[in-house]
Amino acid sequence: MTILGIDPGIQTTGYGVIQKKKGSGQLGLQCIAYGCITTPKEKTRGERLWLLEKGLIKLFSEYKPDIMAVESIFFFKNLKTVMPVSEARGVILLVGAKKKIPLYEFTPLQVKLAITGYGRADKKQLQRMSKEILQLSAVPKPDDAADALSIAVTCSFVAKDNQSKHPITQS
Amino acid sequence: MTILGIDPGIQTTGYGVIQKKKGSGQLGLQCIAYGCITTPKEKTRGERLWLLEKGLIKLFSEYKPDIMAVESIFFFKNLKTVMPVSEARGVILLVGAKKKIPLYEFTPLQVKLAITGYGRADKKQLQRMSKEILQLSAVPKPDDAADALSIAVTCSFVAKDNQSKHPITQS
Repeated sequence: MTILGIDPGIQTTGYGVIQKKKGSGQLGLQCIAYGCITTPKEKTRGERLWLLEKGLIKLFSEYKPDIMAVESIFFFKNLKTVMPVSEARGVILLVGAKKKIPLYEFTPLQVKLAITGYGRADKKQLQRMSKEILQLSAVPKPDDAADALSIAVTCSFVAKDNQSKHPITQS
Repeated sequence: MTILGIDPGIQTTGYGVIQKKKGSGQLGLQCIAYGCITTPKEKTRGERLWLLEKGLIKLFSEYKPDIMAVESIFFFKNLKTVMPVSEARGVILLVGAKKKIPLYEFTPLQVKLAITGYGRADKKQLQRMSKEILQLSAVPKPDDAADALSIAVTCSFVAKDNQSKHPITQS
């Protein structure tokens, strides 16, 4: 089972692809790929969303994920952040729906709790735990990619092995 | 010049199509069509965004707008509203970018000021003014469609007749 984790953003969308199977890594998890889809500031927001869509479609054709897990926002500091992030989320959910794979959503708190068992864990603790779980030699860079991997790992804990098309936390 | 006004939402996206030309109506404006794209609650958010995209593509092929004007959010009451509206906006901006037409964005305050000259005008005053400007026999129903027409009318005031591909308030 291949899980695509996504940390959405208009400038940088992090992604992490992991595989869940018996025997690979201590939890049966293996890191396949991670990275970022970035879009240039000079473009209009519509054009940037289009670039994001293209990047996502490429990821889907390359890794053929069975499940997509996306970070959702529950608290935020200002509207100038939540609006573009949500617009990017709109495009991400659209692409996922067209691929007809189950969608899971996790808040940052859920990710922290799932991976470190501690809701107030800081970013560095979270990243170190994800690194251990995936048996990587170093913490993935940049942060958006590391966050996306953590989201994918969180998803692997709740997604059933024989993933039906009826996810637990579908929005 | 055909202007497509959009009032975004996940459940209901209002649209209004107007034409700006000399001699039609007192300001050269004519209402071509208005209505709503609605999506069923039972669907997942991704599926609803997909339905929205399909509805928008249909509008584009039917009315071939030269310009798109979308309501933007500046103030809001809670995150549960702003997130789905912004996700819908993401899909709307994506479709507009693919059609390569200029995008204008207006806040509700800008629409009120442009149409009534008064930033504290209420919804009913705004709708009555739009009805007069477009010489309609009644205020369009539902509200989302009426709002979308007001956004299109606002856009007609600032968009140049020979609309270049370089809009004034592009985001």
